[in-house]
Amino acid sequence: MKATVFHGARDVRVETVPDPSIREPTDAIVRVVNAAICGSDLWPYRGVAKWEAGARLGHEFTGIVEAVGSGVTAVRTGQFVAAPFSYADGSCAFCRQHLYTSCEHAGFWGGMDDDGGQGQFVRVPFADATLVAIPDAIGHDAVKRTAVLALTDVMGTGYHGVVSAGTQAGGTVVVVGDGAVGLCAVQSARYLGAERVVSVGHHAERLALAERFGATDVVDSHDPDAAQRVVELTHGGAPSVVEAVGMQSSLDLALAVVRDGGTVAFVGVPAGMETLAFRRLFSGNVALRGALAPVRAYLPELMSALAAGAIDPSPVFTLKLPLEGAPQGYKAMDERAAIKVALEISTP
Amino acid sequence: MKATVFHGARDVRVETVPDPSIREPTDAIVRVVNAAICGSDLWPYRGVAKWEAGARLGHEFTGIVEAVGSGVTAVRTGQFVAAPFSYADGSCAFCRQHLYTSCEHAGFWGGMDDDGGQGQFVRVPFADATLVAIPDAIGHDAVKRTAVLALTDVMGTGYHGVVSAGTQAGGTVVVVGDGAVGLCAVQSARYLGAERVVSVGHHAERLALAERFGATDVVDSHDPDAAQRVVELTHGGAPSVVEAVGMQSSLDLALAVVRDGGTVAFVGVPAGMETLAFRRLFSGNVALRGALAPVRAYLPELMSALAAGAIDPSPVFTLKLPLEGAPQGYKAMDERAAIKVALEISTP
Repeated sequence: MKATVFHGARDVRVETVPDPSIREPTDAIVRVVNAAICGSDLWPYRGVAKWEAGARLGHEFTGIVEAVGSGVTAVRTGQFVAAPFSYADGSCAFCRQHLYTSCEHAGFWGGMDDDGGQGQFVRVPFADATLVAIPDAIGHDAVKRTAVLALTDVMGTGYHGVVSAGTQAGGTVVVVGDGAVGLCAVQSARYLGAERVVSVGHHAERLALAERFGATDVVDSHDPDAAQRVVELTHGGAPSVVEAVGMQSSLDLALAVVRDGGTVAFVGVPAGMETLAFRRLFSGNVALRGALAPVRAYLPELMSALAAGAIDPSPVFTLKLPLEGAPQGYKAMDERAAIKVALEISTP
Repeated sequence: MKATVFHGARDVRVETVPDPSIREPTDAIVRVVNAAICGSDLWPYRGVAKWEAGARLGHEFTGIVEAVGSGVTAVRTGQFVAAPFSYADGSCAFCRQHLYTSCEHAGFWGGMDDDGGQGQFVRVPFADATLVAIPDAIGHDAVKRTAVLALTDVMGTGYHGVVSAGTQAGGTVVVVGDGAVGLCAVQSARYLGAERVVSVGHHAERLALAERFGATDVVDSHDPDAAQRVVELTHGGAPSVVEAVGMQSSLDLALAVVRDGGTVAFVGVPAGMETLAFRRLFSGNVALRGALAPVRAYLPELMSALAAGAIDPSPVFTLKLPLEGAPQGYKAMDERAAIKVALEISTP
């Protein structure tokens, strides 16, 4: 089969790799329909994360179940399914409390040992626990078929961020960051009933999309008075803040705009966060919550919301390419020419 | 009147200072019955916190209301009352949600502008909102009269720690630190119904007191395998961890023993906390919560529990002295010869 393979900084190639096969009775093989390129894929791409040459890429995909192992009971051949960005056994103590990312058998797609999403086929461990069937209302609708791809990572992550930040219906949320996850957090906050949602970023067209996603206010993070502006807009700070960048400066901004007693949830892999204003947390009774999204937990809810038209994250995909276009997609993401790229690999 | 005054590192004196008087209609004057010396008083005493000479000391006291301003309606002359370690107006948005420490008019006893608790009289701002009447069941009982002094700070702080760490009835709590606050956190955790309470410290007699306070297990923090031992005892880590020391090493230990999805609440002024394992928070969905205790919020509940005999933090006071003994009390605390010192200043 063809798959996207990492060769070095700014060198990803689509090339022939071995076809996957069932290894464990709980495996399934999925033929990928759509896959996405993620902001976190840029880490190896830019050489920030040191990956081995030959590693497979991609952790967001939907597809058709082609084969199942003898121990698979819920997932059926021919089903259109979505996979969360990490797999889990579904039966350990953490999975039972829906903290799938802490599963003792948790794994992430791609790398040297697993197939990546950005290829024609993927071997899926723990298929019954990992895969979620996509309803026909989504599968038969071209826009929703793209949107559901966002649920496998960025929308689930944005949603987990606003949940982890203690978002209240009728409440106020600040989202720091206007990337795909930040935008999805804005939409999630509105879906959860937040009345005031402030989006902080510095790309005009992304902030415009934030408004389309329901942001009631947008603030330019490059404005030296950005924090003060957010505090004014939120009448003294917000009880719920989602930090969706992962940098020291964005963390500091988040802590400057959280209301005493509130929560800052950070949803991206920490990159260059080094210091914390411990006294700010202490004096203000502020919580800082790390929030690697257990996306699997949210897929059923978000799929229902998508089917019903209550959410639509599809506009985060500003560029669609065939599998062969993966290198071009990475380049567009790297240069911020695209918010997020969808690879259209096969038809359902 | 006589009061304890800071003159410099390891130089505190009991000397004559001006008597306080009503300044605002909402003030009361309290004649101090008992006052305590706090671990945080050692900061200026040791020269770690740079205080001005002449600053008053002490932020924990009980006493008899001697006079009230014209605007005081709830508090009456002659009442035996307890004061939380900070005062608040009781009417702002934060006070209404019982986050008294974030009150826009919040103040702390002592320093250059306010009377300290370690003196004969204290002017109490916002008396109606700040002071809590002590029921006769406590006032008429010598042990409980000492115990109620702990409710003004260390017990309220320990209680806030276990509440902030999300302690569940039947659950598991780890308390890092065997000082007065850590010991009170142990007792609070048991009061809240925790079944497993692990106390981590390194003073044998304090760990023995932790067991008397309800700790089901004690672990020596100087043991190089302390973290591993706690993780084993808690079958993979505790969902609720109270960090009651304030140092980098104790924070690191707390993060090593918290279970994925759990919360570390730190209840002491951060001293030398500089770095945070952001990736630990992220990957494990762990929350770090700063927890400066809004003690006023808990005084009614804890006073009822004390009156009913459900709690008794009085054993944390291992040394009792008259007001004139304050310098000796500081020395005993500094040398760890006493866990906590009570000054018996007048009789109710």
